Amino acid sequence: MPTDLDETLATVRLVDHHVHGPLALEVDRDGFESLISESDRPQPPGLTAFDSQLGFAVRRHCAPLLGLPERVAADDYWDARATWSPGELARLFLGAAGVGDWVVDTGFSADDIWDVERMEAELDGRSREIVRLESTLEDVALTCEPEELEQRFREALDEAARTAVGWKSIVAYRYGFDFEPTRPTSAEVKAAARAWMTTFESGTRPRVEDPVLLRFLLFAACDTGMPLQLHVGFGDPDLDMHRCNPALLTEWLRTVEPTGVRVMLLHCYPYHRMAGYLAHVFPHVYMDVGLGINYTGAASSRVIAESMELAPFGKLLYSSDAWGPPELHYLGSVLWRRGTAAVLRQWVQDGEWSASDACRVAEMVARDNARCVYGLDA
Amino acid sequence: MPTDLDETLATVRLVDHHVHGPLALEVDRDGFESLISESDRPQPPGLTAFDSQLGFAVRRHCAPLLGLPERVAADDYWDARATWSPGELARLFLGAAGVGDWVVDTGFSADDIWDVERMEAELDGRSREIVRLESTLEDVALTCEPEELEQRFREALDEAARTAVGWKSIVAYRYGFDFEPTRPTSAEVKAAARAWMTTFESGTRPRVEDPVLLRFLLFAACDTGMPLQLHVGFGDPDLDMHRCNPALLTEWLRTVEPTGVRVMLLHCYPYHRMAGYLAHVFPHVYMDVGLGINYTGAASSRVIAESMELAPFGKLLYSSDAWGPPELHYLGSVLWRRGTAAVLRQWVQDGEWSASDACRVAEMVARDNARCVYGLDA
Amino acid sequence: MPTDLDETLATVRLVDHHVHGPLALEVDRDGFESLISESDRPQPPGLTAFDSQLGFAVRRHCAPLLGLPERVAADDYWDARATWSPGELARLFLGAAGVGDWVVDTGFSADDIWDVERMEAELDGRSREIVRLESTLEDVALTCEPEELEQRFREALDEAARTAVGWKSIVAYRYGFDFEPTRPTSAEVKAAARAWMTTFESGTRPRVEDPVLLRFLLFAACDTGMPLQLHVGFGDPDLDMHRCNPALLTEWLRTVEPTGVRVMLLHCYPYHRMAGYLAHVFPHVYMDVGLGINYTGAASSRVIAESMELAPFGKLLYSSDAWGPPELHYLGSVLWRRGTAAVLRQWVQDGEWSASDACRVAEMVARDNARCVYGLDA
Repeated sequence: MPTDLDETLATVRLVDHHVHGPLALEVDRDGFESLISESDRPQPPGLTAFDSQLGFAVRRHCAPLLGLPERVAADDYWDARATWSPGELARLFLGAAGVGDWVVDTGFSADDIWDVERMEAELDGRSREIVRLESTLEDVALTCEPEELEQRFREALDEAARTAVGWKSIVAYRYGFDFEPTRPTSAEVKAAARAWMTTFESGTRPRVEDPVLLRFLLFAACDTGMPLQLHVGFGDPDLDMHRCNPALLTEWLRTVEPTGVRVMLLHCYPYHRMAGYLAHVFPHVYMDVGLGINYTGAASSRVIAESMELAPFGKLLYSSDAWGPPELHYLGSVLWRRGTAAVLRQWVQDGEWSASDACRVAEMVARDNARCVYGLDA
Repeated sequence: MPTDLDETLATVRLVDHHVHGPLALEVDRDGFESLISESDRPQPPGLTAFDSQLGFAVRRHCAPLLGLPERVAADDYWDARATWSPGELARLFLGAAGVGDWVVDTGFSADDIWDVERMEAELDGRSREIVRLESTLEDVALTCEPEELEQRFREALDEAARTAVGWKSIVAYRYGFDFEPTRPTSAEVKAAARAWMTTFESGTRPRVEDPVLLRFLLFAACDTGMPLQLHVGFGDPDLDMHRCNPALLTEWLRTVEPTGVRVMLLHCYPYHRMAGYLAHVFPHVYMDVGLGINYTGAASSRVIAESMELAPFGKLLYSSDAWGPPELHYLGSVLWRRGTAAVLRQWVQDGEWSASDACRVAEMVARDNARCVYGLDA
Repeated sequence: MPTDLDETLATVRLVDHHVHGPLALEVDRDGFESLISESDRPQPPGLTAFDSQLGFAVRRHCAPLLGLPERVAADDYWDARATWSPGELARLFLGAAGVGDWVVDTGFSADDIWDVERMEAELDGRSREIVRLESTLEDVALTCEPEELEQRFREALDEAARTAVGWKSIVAYRYGFDFEPTRPTSAEVKAAARAWMTTFESGTRPRVEDPVLLRFLLFAACDTGMPLQLHVGFGDPDLDMHRCNPALLTEWLRTVEPTGVRVMLLHCYPYHRMAGYLAHVFPHVYMDVGLGINYTGAASSRVIAESMELAPFGKLLYSSDAWGPPELHYLGSVLWRRGTAAVLRQWVQDGEWSASDACRVAEMVARDNARCVYGLDA
């Protein structure tokens, strides 16, 4: 059992259990700034996304990997970065993240980023796939009749389950967590499918927003027995944050508990204490504070500490939720390692925790809990 | 006026204003683990309730009282503990808690734990009773007609008030705080009583969940002039946390303000800042962060600090909310003393507070505020 | 570029972008205590508003300006203060606040406090006015017909805009943020105006609480292009805190985004993390934690740190929200300077931020962001 906490946190190979691919394309500076913000709007005049905790963290932690001093000016960072190709940047930053397993959500703008196969081929760590329920349904719906949708979707999940290790739902974006917690009947699903699919226009990708269909996806995923990831809390301005409070899921969590599903609450900020409560009282609930760590930067150790209040230590996971700029894949790792070290070191110094317990919990959150949930050693 | 903050916090005799009895029965290890978790579900396979802040705090702070080293392994803790009888453990841990007054909620699973009489007889401190409204109504309803329920319940309160020092409501569990804030009429109470009591089955204890009856209990308690405790926030998975936000009580608090009732918001985590706001603006609202301290363990000083942001210092109370394992009665005290010392010491070191103010506030929260609210010196 | 953080934070001339006038009248001790609390109720028997974070901060930071020792007893503070006239106190404390621009909300109990003209005449800094929408409508309604109300109100805004630099809405108090996010039609406004104005009684000041009219005010303000301040979160017991969560504004924020309005979320405690999220994702949203700093006193550095998690550094502003006792105008400044210095110094010491970045961000929040939003250099 290791007892050197700094050593443990510096070297443990992570499972990044919620991540997307690094950028496959060149971006200009405006494009880069838009990708280090959760806003989908242009920066207000005179402002730059570099003037944020995440922007400061890029300059502090990513600059040295490009051969620059720490905390270099944003313009200098950008100039140096522009001399690297997307592939070089991806290999540089993802290689430095110390990740042994990438668990990759492939459901968003997949054309702009590396796919799982490329990650598997070009990176040290292994890569496994998480399949998005909503995009899978949208794909299936293009090639079947409404009456077949339920069956065809379940078949698509069965097919995906041959290689994927879990599911992801963005019901938080498409509706909110205040959905009816009951399982829809087949008749309800058929009626909703008919209503939705009559709106399809050729040439336009359909978008599922109907709450009956969204609930159907969730229950169908639960029926597979594989882990189900849910986006919770902080994200882009498409969502209504007061409808993304995970406490709204409570009755649904009770309903699906008998299926054996493990529900992975992602990010959770600023509801991470509420997520910790759910992970405490429900055996099938797990959580991370992934996106919240990158975006709170120098302040992230407090977010990490708060996530370790109520959540059992066997229910917390690491993720970066990086999408695009490979700085994000690296920063997630660096900030989690530094923040967790700071939090656990304090508890050891206070005499509250032993150093060996701190190392053990660090390894559980970094790696072991995720390996167990997703069966990564199988 | 003492000015030695560490000395004050180490020695002040506490009023534990919300507590239950220690275990009267032997428990096996699974039983013990279930009692150091707010979950009523078994631990997930491979996990142990010892891998939590509370579990770590048990090993850190309780082990020495059993003659073990601090931070002993969980198995060793359990083996040593198993050599003590329930009575020995209760006297050991409750005796070490430094509590001068136990204010005991007797309304939950009373057969498994010491009753108030035994606490009074076997412990140094005095013990006074808090009576649960819901169980009192359920008792009364078994022996009267629906038309009599209102009057018989008020008589039961009058009888209980001869020895009890306050009331407790678990409306948070039975319905939520989003109840109608108005006083129900006698006709409404009678109609609800009839509807409820016709559902009684012989041999089954009735359970009141009707919102009209639950509201009636609250108003009847307010009419007595004695303090009324409300479970708020964190608790077992029976409750829906988004309906336990104490802000939902605002209009009801305005409604009952003229009765002179003092409303005691219990635990409150993760709504303790909201509870602090209510204690700030409403003269009749008080709060504690009892359960939240034990369950956040090494991280509890931040919860304590947050509870001291808006709440006036005359409105904060100490509690352990311990039920069962006597470790919880002790830990509540130890963690509150340590956490409060850490928080106040920082403010003194920063030059923001004087040491004598810090000692005075510590004694208010530890003892004086509760003595005043419950009339414990009378 | 300054790099001495303590020097920068001690000397930067602030823009207090949300403040009211200092007291023009003598108050007795009860009156003073009621003004250092957000409660509009008398203190409970035996308690004093001095036993709070704000009360302790008054004794700590304001006493020296009266020639008293730091942390003097409350009675001694009061005795010394009573020898000063209201004008002397105002000049003393506001003069010491280091404020270069006062942006003054004149809409509440204006007779008891200095008006903008007196602030401009007697203080070093410049003073500009923020006009309250609700009181403006109530003034206009007294002198027109319901059919004219919409037009006359817009004319009143146009007139006010000749000297004012922004608007303030207290829809949080008058209704809540759960209003319909759509722009009311002229017909709806007329109907609501008729319904409201028929309730007027001579000799009584009307009070607008109709949600259609309150929404009309917001949209009319947005149409002017000037910044719109919204009270958010913590305030007196008139409001229902669960209806003041700024997340409830999300759809309305989307609706008004095209008007070019800048929406200033004021105070925000305990929703400051949610406000930070909105400031992050919406280009037109800004925030402060003004009132929350004064009322959390020695604990305010944590509130400041939390406000700097998600909010872009170009979107945070300083305010005191002082009304009445000039101690509040001074304390807002002192506590913000001290708390921000403590937070930024830690990040610099941790190696996460450079000292020059810390100084630059401090000046942005202290002064530059507000100057830009309100056009104070024009």
